[in-house]
Amino acid sequence: METGIRLWVVGTVGIDTITTRKGRFENQLGGSVTYAGAAASFFTRVGSVGVVGSDFPDAFLERYLKLGMDVAGIQFEQGPTFHWEGVYEADMVNRRTIRTDLGVLETFAPQLPENYRDAPFVLLGNINPDLQLRLLDQARGARFVAVDSMDLWINCARATLVKVIGRSHLVTLNDSEARQLTGQFGLRQCAAALFDMGVEYVLIKKGEHGALLFSREGIAIIPAYPVQEVCDPTGAGDTYAGAFMGYLAEHGTVDLPNLRQALLHASAVAAFGVEDMSTTRLEALTRAEIDTRARELREMTAL
Amino acid sequence: METGIRLWVVGTVGIDTITTRKGRFENQLGGSVTYAGAAASFFTRVGSVGVVGSDFPDAFLERYLKLGMDVAGIQFEQGPTFHWEGVYEADMVNRRTIRTDLGVLETFAPQLPENYRDAPFVLLGNINPDLQLRLLDQARGARFVAVDSMDLWINCARATLVKVIGRSHLVTLNDSEARQLTGQFGLRQCAAALFDMGVEYVLIKKGEHGALLFSREGIAIIPAYPVQEVCDPTGAGDTYAGAFMGYLAEHGTVDLPNLRQALLHASAVAAFGVEDMSTTRLEALTRAEIDTRARELREMTAL
Repeated sequence: METGIRLWVVGTVGIDTITTRKGRFENQLGGSVTYAGAAASFFTRVGSVGVVGSDFPDAFLERYLKLGMDVAGIQFEQGPTFHWEGVYEADMVNRRTIRTDLGVLETFAPQLPENYRDAPFVLLGNINPDLQLRLLDQARGARFVAVDSMDLWINCARATLVKVIGRSHLVTLNDSEARQLTGQFGLRQCAAALFDMGVEYVLIKKGEHGALLFSREGIAIIPAYPVQEVCDPTGAGDTYAGAFMGYLAEHGTVDLPNLRQALLHASAVAAFGVEDMSTTRLEALTRAEIDTRARELREMTAL
Repeated sequence: METGIRLWVVGTVGIDTITTRKGRFENQLGGSVTYAGAAASFFTRVGSVGVVGSDFPDAFLERYLKLGMDVAGIQFEQGPTFHWEGVYEADMVNRRTIRTDLGVLETFAPQLPENYRDAPFVLLGNINPDLQLRLLDQARGARFVAVDSMDLWINCARATLVKVIGRSHLVTLNDSEARQLTGQFGLRQCAAALFDMGVEYVLIKKGEHGALLFSREGIAIIPAYPVQEVCDPTGAGDTYAGAFMGYLAEHGTVDLPNLRQALLHASAVAAFGVEDMSTTRLEALTRAEIDTRARELREMTAL
């Protein structure tokens, strides 16, 4: 691993149009690999795997580089970049998708750069499970694989997703997705069904309400940091997953104490991420700010 | 305080009809003082203030006594007992009210028994703020008053509710009620607005997602215990508030460490309460089980 890539992330790279109660914001840098990679970059050198089209602004790529992300895994294709448009309700939690244009994502055939293949940590961000599986075949050094997904893939590509989960160590879903995928209702029962699919850990993300990490040894409850004001919740789950895996990659050992610390830091980073549009706040963020917020959050939960 | 009443609770005593995905359950003992008093009874001798009608079964009163609750403050009137009917959605969280018959509650003129008047701890459970205010006038020994309410009273009796809050030390609401009452969106801003109304503490209950306690010194985050299977969520918020106040009454001192421990134990009791219909599980519960579950929950959140 000459280049020191200890973690790579695959996901969408997108150009988003986002409407919140503050207004309509066009041409926002988005996508799961953008948010997850940005968040992971505070902890480790992170490789990005995704595809962009000919309309992808140079300035967006510069933002990747400014964040310290490796872009060797970003493919450039002719055609439009993946575009997502969504509208948030007044609660800034629920949202409607207005438009999804796959663009170059439709024919994306990911190739893992040679210098990513020995990386021990892998985050299969939210993207078509076929692509997640294809990349997993190339990840010869993977020691700890986390997979994220969403309702779309549970509906359209369930069998492949279950296969990916079976080859991963951790799966992360929100509570309704976990229920949808397993057919169980209680979260403990959902976790048990996901263990049966082959993972060791199940991370249930609940947004502003924090997360639950299920393992065979027990449950860890990780709170969310109480944000002053949410500006843009887009990508918060990806930010959370990215920071979590970045922290693990930085520390190397996967055990419950490190997993808890990773999630605590992930809560801190995700809370910063939603304070401004797109990755704007993450680009101005420092590691010291993250550690301070993680400490604050630990104090808030001390019992 | 010869009789040792250190905490009294006012609220509704009701006969509920509850429909969940398990079926329709008629003639269930319910009401805010029932749940709150039952939960508090594990920690302290609790006085109950409420009204029941001529249809109130003796067996229900025996359940109060079996739980060790003092019933000197329960008034018996001619007419029907308060009746509530609700239907839970499949998520076992959201619910619709089908019917509310006030019955004898409509003309309830509460009188605080003489031996409750010196009690230092008071829980003004969810009931008409006029009644809460009238009782507060009689509570000469009150040192720590907590007030619970709901959207109905925020809509119909806002001014009186604000007056009650101004004379209380802690107000507890769920997140949407806090937003509705204060006109603020962020929970930190809601808490600040409630401080301005005169309380020292704001407890935001989030059901299965736990609670946030705001004070001028900082925020405490208290998780909910991950329940195996929810049978009947009715009264969970009242159970939570009752156990919380019971623990404080037991320990006497109101400071942040005790408040955190009180909320931890409240999470444990509330999680037991929803495991069976009405107060059935609470009636079979022991203090040792509560302490074990509180310890488990503390371990789940250890960071």
